[in-house]
Amino acid sequence: MKILVINTGSSSIKYQLFDMDRDSAMVIGLVEKIGEKNSILTHKTIDQNGDGKEKVETSHIADHTKGLARIVELLTDPEYGVIRDKSEITAVGHRVVHGGEQFKSSTVINEKVLKTVKDNIPLAPLHNPPNLTGIEVAKTIFPGAPQVAVFDTAFHQSIPQKAYLYALPYDLYLKNRVRRYGFHGTSHAYVTVEAAKFMGISRDKFNLITIHLGNGASMTAVKNGRSFDTSMGLTPLEGLVMGTRSGDVDPALPFFLARNLDMDLKDIDQLLNKESGIKGFCGINDMREVEDRARAGDERAKTALDVYAYRIKKYIGAYYAALGRLDAIVFTAGIGENSPLIRSMCCKDLQELGIKIDEDKNRERRKDERDISATDSRIRILVIPTNEEKRIARETKRVIEHIN
Amino acid sequence: MKILVINTGSSSIKYQLFDMDRDSAMVIGLVEKIGEKNSILTHKTIDQNGDGKEKVETSHIADHTKGLARIVELLTDPEYGVIRDKSEITAVGHRVVHGGEQFKSSTVINEKVLKTVKDNIPLAPLHNPPNLTGIEVAKTIFPGAPQVAVFDTAFHQSIPQKAYLYALPYDLYLKNRVRRYGFHGTSHAYVTVEAAKFMGISRDKFNLITIHLGNGASMTAVKNGRSFDTSMGLTPLEGLVMGTRSGDVDPALPFFLARNLDMDLKDIDQLLNKESGIKGFCGINDMREVEDRARAGDERAKTALDVYAYRIKKYIGAYYAALGRLDAIVFTAGIGENSPLIRSMCCKDLQELGIKIDEDKNRERRKDERDISATDSRIRILVIPTNEEKRIARETKRVIEHIN
Repeated sequence: MKILVINTGSSSIKYQLFDMDRDSAMVIGLVEKIGEKNSILTHKTIDQNGDGKEKVETSHIADHTKGLARIVELLTDPEYGVIRDKSEITAVGHRVVHGGEQFKSSTVINEKVLKTVKDNIPLAPLHNPPNLTGIEVAKTIFPGAPQVAVFDTAFHQSIPQKAYLYALPYDLYLKNRVRRYGFHGTSHAYVTVEAAKFMGISRDKFNLITIHLGNGASMTAVKNGRSFDTSMGLTPLEGLVMGTRSGDVDPALPFFLARNLDMDLKDIDQLLNKESGIKGFCGINDMREVEDRARAGDERAKTALDVYAYRIKKYIGAYYAALGRLDAIVFTAGIGENSPLIRSMCCKDLQELGIKIDEDKNRERRKDERDISATDSRIRILVIPTNEEKRIARETKRVIEHIN
Repeated sequence: MKILVINTGSSSIKYQLFDMDRDSAMVIGLVEKIGEKNSILTHKTIDQNGDGKEKVETSHIADHTKGLARIVELLTDPEYGVIRDKSEITAVGHRVVHGGEQFKSSTVINEKVLKTVKDNIPLAPLHNPPNLTGIEVAKTIFPGAPQVAVFDTAFHQSIPQKAYLYALPYDLYLKNRVRRYGFHGTSHAYVTVEAAKFMGISRDKFNLITIHLGNGASMTAVKNGRSFDTSMGLTPLEGLVMGTRSGDVDPALPFFLARNLDMDLKDIDQLLNKESGIKGFCGINDMREVEDRARAGDERAKTALDVYAYRIKKYIGAYYAALGRLDAIVFTAGIGENSPLIRSMCCKDLQELGIKIDEDKNRERRKDERDISATDSRIRILVIPTNEEKRIARETKRVIEHIN
């Protein structure tokens, strides 16, 4: 079975074609700068040995329909293709950012689903509209294949009320749906499944904390295999320090900035989402470069790392208390998978809580799933590479098999 | 030695006269509605047995000077007084809310100190101005007595950079002094001292979490007797759920409310500070009544308690991780001292972290300092009644003895 996974942004389409018989991607690609004069398409095949061919094209791609059409041409290209005809694609799985409270799991897309995704645009004004465009375009190009929506928020719909409600007038929840939704659900769900397999624990008895550290970053407390709390909230701004996002701040900050610096809400939105986080300290948000600077003695870079890791450490403690019993901590995504320094700083001095890293194992450069905890650590510390596209492909397969 | 403690609000003066030889208050009083037609003065004497006389007056008190003059009359009154002449008052201790980064401890007030408190008005626009009025008035009425400022923020000036910096553009800290300051420092410091004495631990080796739950609420992680992190931030809005304040929310909430509900920053300030917290769920913010309603089956009241206690529990875990080693958890202030239900909910299911309450001890109705932890709890759970005025009196005594 072949499944095409699509993640549509306002001017981009990320795609992967999965061979579900071997649970892995045959093609990984990206169309960028759609609508601009020089759109860029990067298309890479991967064979069973992990080898492959790459093609990069620069040309004008007017819209998402033209973009997806060109993707299909390449997928069936004699040289760069991996299938003979688009009819070999059994289903298309779409990343959809916001499923609101209506979607607790992935679902086959029909008119009712499309309407609900549209209704959730106020909750994700930047993401749901291009996701909808991607679905419309895919329906035209693959009229015979079922389309499946896999939501960033769905995994977190198991979060109990005490963790998803803010202490605000209750009508804001009832009438305006203001609550914690959480994001990165696909990643947190994927590494939960993989970590359970890795440890040989039944998922429905597995308590863990998943730490997704990419340019966006979030943590989830997972209880009995289900999301119990997560650091992102109504929007992806809350929680951890990120590349350019502040994460948690005093909610009165906007009043202070308006009063003392004459900033308006638009300025403050820009400030907190685009100019803060690691970038706020260092002017850059590439964590590798920040680490290099810190090692070279740059005080501002050291401060950035200190604040970044300390915030994660506090969430580890908070979620341990929330869960009451903890089996494992899982690091994932770009920084989580590749930064021994950050992992070490986050776990430092937590022995009394049963968390102790093995620094030799932590420093080993490896790409696979691994346990980096000391043998006398009561709680396992794991590194599990995330794969959101694989999760979307697996979910798509599960959903269409369920309906047949 | 007699010390007068004054806490001046925009239309009120709270006062206590301390006999430092027995480390306790001889008079407790309050002038309310200063400037209104019917100002109210409540004046209560307390003798060594805890007995005393109360006088309540309703009359027009035009301003703070008139208010303090009337207080002095009552302190020296033949029937309701406890001293013969105001010259018996050795010093006056003032609660001052915001000492910024300049004041790391209590200090004798001189012109330079007054100027700095004025410079900090942008950080505490509602509190520092009346505190300054109180100082000016007291200087006129007690020209011979030293005036001492005891800051709400001073105890938290030991917080390390990684805990006080937000992940914002660094210039906001350098130029506009945006950082975590924390409040309730006088209370957190007082219960730290008392808890160390109670446990017979040297304060400079004592790690604890202090939980101040009044109508305002905050928690502090105390490391080696000094504040290491605290839940209130740039303002007293951040952190725990409070009577009418939201505590932590997604920092993007104002953008959502402006976009979808057409609210401006003033509306949102009012909403988060005055209409949220326990009141947001229940319409009332009296915790005893909320508990009664919850016991009677009111779902909204149950939800309020769940969210309230869950937030505290997460901070317990967060601060345990921040400290690495923990000796005790201390509950204090109105709700912390008097609600077995809240204490029980906050500590529930934390055995694996070494925290276990003894429910029989927890339910005992007592007013003294006490240990409510189970004998097999690795970490002690204490109830320590707070006394901010006593702390201010002690600090005032310490400071004036130091300068003499």
